[in-house]
Amino acid sequence: MSDIVRFKQHPSETLKVGKGFRLKDVDPDATPGYPGDKSDGELLLSDLDDNLTVFQEQLFAESRFGGTKRLLLILQAMDTAGKGGIVNHVMGTMNPQGVQLRSFKAPTDEEKSYDFLWRIEKEVPAAGMVGVFDRSHYEDVLIHRVHRWADPKELERRYQAINEFEARQTAAGTKIVKVMLHISPDEQKERLLARLDDPSKLWKYSSNDLKERAFWDDYMAAYQAAFDLTNSSAAPWHVVPANKKWYARIAVQQLLLDAMDGLKLEWPVPELDVALERDLVERS
Amino acid sequence: MSDIVRFKQHPSETLKVGKGFRLKDVDPDATPGYPGDKSDGELLLSDLDDNLTVFQEQLFAESRFGGTKRLLLILQAMDTAGKGGIVNHVMGTMNPQGVQLRSFKAPTDEEKSYDFLWRIEKEVPAAGMVGVFDRSHYEDVLIHRVHRWADPKELERRYQAINEFEARQTAAGTKIVKVMLHISPDEQKERLLARLDDPSKLWKYSSNDLKERAFWDDYMAAYQAAFDLTNSSAAPWHVVPANKKWYARIAVQQLLLDAMDGLKLEWPVPELDVALERDLVERS
Repeated sequence: MSDIVRFKQHPSETLKVGKGFRLKDVDPDATPGYPGDKSDGELLLSDLDDNLTVFQEQLFAESRFGGTKRLLLILQAMDTAGKGGIVNHVMGTMNPQGVQLRSFKAPTDEEKSYDFLWRIEKEVPAAGMVGVFDRSHYEDVLIHRVHRWADPKELERRYQAINEFEARQTAAGTKIVKVMLHISPDEQKERLLARLDDPSKLWKYSSNDLKERAFWDDYMAAYQAAFDLTNSSAAPWHVVPANKKWYARIAVQQLLLDAMDGLKLEWPVPELDVALERDLVERS
Repeated sequence: MSDIVRFKQHPSETLKVGKGFRLKDVDPDATPGYPGDKSDGELLLSDLDDNLTVFQEQLFAESRFGGTKRLLLILQAMDTAGKGGIVNHVMGTMNPQGVQLRSFKAPTDEEKSYDFLWRIEKEVPAAGMVGVFDRSHYEDVLIHRVHRWADPKELERRYQAINEFEARQTAAGTKIVKVMLHISPDEQKERLLARLDDPSKLWKYSSNDLKERAFWDDYMAAYQAAFDLTNSSAAPWHVVPANKKWYARIAVQQLLLDAMDGLKLEWPVPELDVALERDLVERS
């Protein structure tokens, strides 16, 4: 029985976007703050799952007694970066009743007829819930910037609107964790080829992925702009190196654990006479 | 390494409500069709999880290519019977993007202002999805019957409406699996006491549970009536003995596996030239 290898420095510090942050300096192969290897990471992941389960149950329980805390994980990444695997894992550890996942695809005609935050507002987590956004309002300053579907003035309006929107959510009790999973173009190539080679993955392959891939540098510039303009102490960005899937998983798990820990959650104590209720149950 | 102990007879046969079925003949402690014990059951459960994962992914994948199949699990039970644990487990094995859970609580004022199926229709699974109903439209012929919130004529209307509703869902491609988890009054007593004794469970305790418990026999009669009047070959009822939680879990897992198996799912093959796409990716 080997010992669990834990983070030396937490991703909430090492992966946080700070002043002067440059995306191009991040190595997608790196494993910042973690001294172990893949098998260590897998052990750590399953070791900490229960902690996340308990935190989430406490968060949900508090809301049944008037608590307003909630958590929102925002995931952004290039195709194949592993958002799906992260979502699977995170949500697999939680009570499904307390988690709400929303995958934001290309907007429908109805959604397009409103301001870009209209469809987002409808999906923010209720009190006690863990919300997971698989893509988000950031698409409106990423793909829209890359393909110039929005002009610079409109983009500027959106960055500001996002900041106001996120500040309002935070003020209402929402802890926001923003994550970009960062892979390299070569890693994406390998993963696209893997989809083509595996009959159980082939259906996920879209030749459209190749089209967006051609704009890689533009996307990186758009991400950099988003970090520069929407990073805040209330809703900080984290860039998670994701060429190693096992590292991305423990990093996001640890980010969520730290966020939950910061909420100072406790089991609610209902106002009831336990001895009396015990007696009533016994007699029933 | 011990061998996996499997069902001798599948719950889709042994637990299915048939002609002349009487709820009072079901032993909540029994483990029909399964020759193993708790530890065998736990091994089986984790052994079959991957199969369910694959089936669900295929179901979802087919819908991306025009498939209309979908699955709806309807769970009904007395309080503490273990619906939550079943939901946790079932959904934990699936891709959250492809599962939609809806817990039907007491209806809101708005919901009450419509016919009872209004809020249900809105939550039926889309093509490719696995829907999970934690309670359902059956509350409208269970608690409503027990407390006489609906008179016999209105109940009769509801049974018929339910049958028409479920037949329509089935015709649209939905495989419906209806499950009642069956515990004994003594088992419920133990579980209520356990909630009172555990600080991490106390918040779930409601003195209201005791009030409904007092109507146990009326509930059993209402369930029997529901089985008599809404059991159909398209949407059959299954009564799962649930005093042993491990048995209830493998039974529901096997019911879902059999339902999925009946859908004859396959990995979709997109119309694309794999060799060409491979080449394009390599060069990109």
